Amino acid sequence: MDDRRLGRNRPLRRAPRIELDDVVYGIHAVEEALNANETLRRIHVGDDRKRDAAVQAIVRRAEEAEIPVRFESRAFFANFPYKAHQGVVAFGTPFDYAGLDEILASRRGATGLLVVVLDHVTDPHNLGAIIRSAECAGAAGLVIPERRAAGVNATVRKASAGASAFLSIARVSNIAQAIRSLKKARVWVAGADLGDGTVPYASADFNRDVAVVIGAEGAGLSPLVRRECDYLVSIPILGKTASLNASVAAGVLLYEAVRQRGG
Amino acid sequence: MDDRRLGRNRPLRRAPRIELDDVVYGIHAVEEALNANETLRRIHVGDDRKRDAAVQAIVRRAEEAEIPVRFESRAFFANFPYKAHQGVVAFGTPFDYAGLDEILASRRGATGLLVVVLDHVTDPHNLGAIIRSAECAGAAGLVIPERRAAGVNATVRKASAGASAFLSIARVSNIAQAIRSLKKARVWVAGADLGDGTVPYASADFNRDVAVVIGAEGAGLSPLVRRECDYLVSIPILGKTASLNASVAAGVLLYEAVRQRGG
Repeated sequence: MDDRRLGRNRPLRRAPRIELDDVVYGIHAVEEALNANETLRRIHVGDDRKRDAAVQAIVRRAEEAEIPVRFESRAFFANFPYKAHQGVVAFGTPFDYAGLDEILASRRGATGLLVVVLDHVTDPHNLGAIIRSAECAGAAGLVIPERRAAGVNATVRKASAGASAFLSIARVSNIAQAIRSLKKARVWVAGADLGDGTVPYASADFNRDVAVVIGAEGAGLSPLVRRECDYLVSIPILGKTASLNASVAAGVLLYEAVRQRGG
Repeated sequence: MDDRRLGRNRPLRRAPRIELDDVVYGIHAVEEALNANETLRRIHVGDDRKRDAAVQAIVRRAEEAEIPVRFESRAFFANFPYKAHQGVVAFGTPFDYAGLDEILASRRGATGLLVVVLDHVTDPHNLGAIIRSAECAGAAGLVIPERRAAGVNATVRKASAGASAFLSIARVSNIAQAIRSLKKARVWVAGADLGDGTVPYASADFNRDVAVVIGAEGAGLSPLVRRECDYLVSIPILGKTASLNASVAAGVLLYEAVRQRGG
């Protein structure tokens, strides 16, 4: 299978709650989209928010960037599916996924490549937080599955606090296949798991080209994906709770890599 | 001010979205509440979920624990304010907050005390994830403010994956005052911050009695709280995003403490 096929942007198969893949809403998210020079087709602003300084700044910047701004009555926002819009809604373009080959091509000399692979994380807040952590930790990219998982929609972009504009994200048809491609490209693949057969994460070597695989909320890594990993790392649990939240686990592992690399 | 006043359980001042402080909903959350021997007054189960094996197990365990179970038509759940109930809703008792003195009293010999202080974290998912991480990392407790912040409601309990039943959580009227009490009790107070005047977190000493202070989403630490901290630690940001999600930052710092303590 050609690597380039893996990241191909197929028609979206939307989960029920993913309604608009190309909308950015809320003052902070729209500001971040402007900061990132995201292609915005137009911005809708509530008539009753015109006097807000942050909203005025958005309108000014939109005019400078030649993005059409429309002022709207309350009726417009009453039909908008997300509540946290703060009277500012922008329409952009569907998320521009990268190919796995592009992520591999970003390999730099001195520090090793750092990639995150998600084995069917479904919560958009977790996906957004993981995108944010990966970008903060200097990761080269993120690999997510096409189906039965959250895609990069408006909720995810908002939860990523703008990081989705700066991180290469590949959407692949098969995670196990993507892991095989990573291994073929001499990237070590570490699966985050619990219990038997795992190495405590702080004893594992993250100071090389490495991909960290995070499993689904609740279920963890699928058996097929677990088998494809070069090794399994675990985060010690000193309390009575079974495991960490998926985005927290990803953050702990990513920042252990940063620490080991002297960041 | 007497320390015992700090953790006093005052009448709840509910934020608009905090509707029911004593409800547990969803299969996993109710299972965890049963595992933790939470005092449940009754459990409501959807007629249409009677054949689900996980629901049947909950009903059996409720009967063993002499918790009344009522079977309900769809109309009951139509009025329930949280959508992710999965046909299983339990009513318990309002969250039983601890006092700051109780958290300090749990100090053990060999490993240092680890406490998390939240300076007005407002997102219930972040609060839940932080409770979960603190419990997983073996923290003695969590300190949250009474006002302008998320309290331990049903959404928080669910996001904590049951950890709220195992962690001492104190709700105080004044975070700066609580920090002064911690310092008086010879606990070092490290504030998570960005930029000037901070120490990279991996260079800070967490192998002693230490409280980690996490600021509000967006705003970070308030100036008053920042001034009260013994020192400020920062997590390096290698990308273009301004900062990590609050619950991820808490997890990274807590697990650095675990790592330094040889956990």
